[in-house]
Amino acid sequence: MEKLKLMSLYTAFRKDLSFIEKELEQSVDSSSPVIRQASLLLLRAGGKRIRPIFVILSSQFGEYSLDNVSKVAVSLELIHMASLVHDDVIDNSDVRRGFETVKARWNNRIAMYTGDYIFSRALVSIGEIEIPAVHQLLAETMLEICKGEIIQIEYQKRVDQNFRDYLRRIKRKTALLLSSSCELGALASNAETEIVGKLKRFGYFAGMAFQIVDDILDITSTDEKLGKPAGSDLLNGHLTLPTLYIKDDPDFQPYLKSAFEGSLTEEDRVKMLAFIRQSGAVEKAQCVSNLYLNKAVLEVESLPEGEAKRSLLQIAEFLSKRKY
Amino acid sequence: MEKLKLMSLYTAFRKDLSFIEKELEQSVDSSSPVIRQASLLLLRAGGKRIRPIFVILSSQFGEYSLDNVSKVAVSLELIHMASLVHDDVIDNSDVRRGFETVKARWNNRIAMYTGDYIFSRALVSIGEIEIPAVHQLLAETMLEICKGEIIQIEYQKRVDQNFRDYLRRIKRKTALLLSSSCELGALASNAETEIVGKLKRFGYFAGMAFQIVDDILDITSTDEKLGKPAGSDLLNGHLTLPTLYIKDDPDFQPYLKSAFEGSLTEEDRVKMLAFIRQSGAVEKAQCVSNLYLNKAVLEVESLPEGEAKRSLLQIAEFLSKRKY
Repeated sequence: MEKLKLMSLYTAFRKDLSFIEKELEQSVDSSSPVIRQASLLLLRAGGKRIRPIFVILSSQFGEYSLDNVSKVAVSLELIHMASLVHDDVIDNSDVRRGFETVKARWNNRIAMYTGDYIFSRALVSIGEIEIPAVHQLLAETMLEICKGEIIQIEYQKRVDQNFRDYLRRIKRKTALLLSSSCELGALASNAETEIVGKLKRFGYFAGMAFQIVDDILDITSTDEKLGKPAGSDLLNGHLTLPTLYIKDDPDFQPYLKSAFEGSLTEEDRVKMLAFIRQSGAVEKAQCVSNLYLNKAVLEVESLPEGEAKRSLLQIAEFLSKRKY
Repeated sequence: MEKLKLMSLYTAFRKDLSFIEKELEQSVDSSSPVIRQASLLLLRAGGKRIRPIFVILSSQFGEYSLDNVSKVAVSLELIHMASLVHDDVIDNSDVRRGFETVKARWNNRIAMYTGDYIFSRALVSIGEIEIPAVHQLLAETMLEICKGEIIQIEYQKRVDQNFRDYLRRIKRKTALLLSSSCELGALASNAETEIVGKLKRFGYFAGMAFQIVDDILDITSTDEKLGKPAGSDLLNGHLTLPTLYIKDDPDFQPYLKSAFEGSLTEEDRVKMLAFIRQSGAVEKAQCVSNLYLNKAVLEVESLPEGEAKRSLLQIAEFLSKRKY
C-alpha cells in the first residue's frame, strides 16, 4: 500500500518513468544467459527507482529531453544495481528485497562480473551524452562510491568509530549517487548553474535523510517488510546511527559482541532489537534524519514553482516517513 | 635481459612513458591505506605497459599531445590492472608475476573493490578528454571485456569447446583492449579515419598473436620466468590453443581430468607439461599466432613512414618471439 502511495507521487512522470523502465530492461538483455537472468533478477526485485525519478525531476528545470534524461537515468540506476550486486558479495547476503541474490543463485564470481557488466552497461548508456562535465561527474562519483565500499570493509566489526565515520560512510554509500542523480539530470538539460547547485545539494541532503531512515528501518521494521532479517546491519558487522548511540551501553554490548562474532541466537536477535527499540536511540536517529530533510526542503523551496518542485517536496516528505 | 630488449624498443618514447608511469602512480595514491598499498602492489608488479606504448605510438599519427596521450594511456593501463585484480579472484591466484596478489594479501572482497576503485580511477582519467567518441568506445570495450569474463567462467572446466570458442575468448580477454588502445590513441590525437582503422586492426591482430604466445608460454616456460606454476591455465580449468589441439588424445585426457578436478600431483604436472611440449601442439599454436602477426604487420606497412611505424613493427616482432 505504501508502495502505491509512492507511485502516486510519480503520476505526473509515470509515462517517462515507464519508458526508462523499458530502456533498463533492454540494456541488460544480453546473449549470455547468466548475465541476462542475473540482471533481470535484479531489475525485477525492483526498488523505488529513486535515482531515475530524481533525474527526471531535476531535468524539468532545464530544457527537458526524454532522450537525454533516459540515458542518464538508466546509467545511474544500473550503477546502483551494480553496486548492490557487489554489496551482496561483501555482506554475504542470500536475499535482497525478498528475492534471491545473484551470489546466492550463482556464486561470488558470477556476482562480481555481473556487477562489472552492469557497470559497463551504465557507461555505454551515458556514453552517448556529449557533455564532458557529465562524464567527469559520473567518474568522480563512482570513485567516491568505491572508496566508500572499501572503507565500509575497513570499518566492519569495529566498535571504535564515531558519528562522523558513520556520516562519511552513508554519504558515499547513498547520498553521493542521489546528489549526482540530481546534478546530472540538471546538467544534461543545461539548467542554470545556480539551479544545478541547489538540486545537487537537495539530492545530497535527501540522500543522507534517506539512508538514516533505511538504517532505522533495519531495527524497527519486520523481516517480512524488509525482505531480510531485521538487524541485518549488525549481523553483517555494520554499526549504524541508532546503534552508535548505544554501542557503549553495557547492557547492549553482549548483543553487539555476539552479532559481530556471528554467534547471536535467533532468540537474542529478537531481544536485541527490542532493546534498541526501547532505548531512545531510534528517536535520536530520526531527529538527525529530519535535520537533513529540512536542509533538503530549504534547497527546493527557492527553485522555480511547478510540478517538479511540488514532486521533489512530496518525495522528500515521503522518504522521511516511509515504513519500508 | 629480454625485458631490457623490450625497453630498448621503447627508447624513442622513454620520456613520455616515464611521464605516464608517474601519472599512473599518482592516480592510485589514495588516502585509504588498503587501496594505496593494493594499487601500488599491482603497479610495481609491472607488466610490459603495452597498452600505454600502443597509445603513444598510435597518437604519433595525429596531432600528438602528451597531455591527452597520458590520460588515455593511464586510463587503459588502469582498466587492465583492474581486470587483473578481478581475474585473480576468479582464478584464485595467490601469485602474479612473482608478486603476491591483492586477493592473497587481503581477501576476495578487498580485491573486488580495489578493482572497482581502479576502474573508477580509469574513468576519471579519461573523463577529462572532451571527445565523445572516446567515451563511447571505452564503454563498449569494457562491456565486451566483462562479457568475456563471464563467458570465461561459463567455459571453465568444459572440454566441449572448439577453436572458435577459444578465439572469441582471447579476443575479449586481450585483443579488444589492445585494439582500443590503438584506436583511442589515434582518436585522441585526431588522426585520419583511415589511419584510425588501420591502427585499430593492428592492435586487434597483435593482441590475438600476443595472447596465443602467452598461452604457449604457460606450457613451455618455467615457473620462475612465469612467476607462477607452468600449466596454471589448465590448473585453473582454462583450455587454451595448444591444449585444444590435444584435448581428445586418450593419453592426455587423464592429465586434463585431474587438472580440472584439482587432483593433479606435482609429478604429474611435470609429466603433463612434457607431454604437451612433445605433442606438436605448441608448434601448431605458434603458427596461428604468426598468422595473426602477419596480419598485424600488413596493417602497419601502409602507415606513413617514421619512428612510430618502425616501433610498431619492432614491437609486433618482439611480441611474437618473447620468452616471458
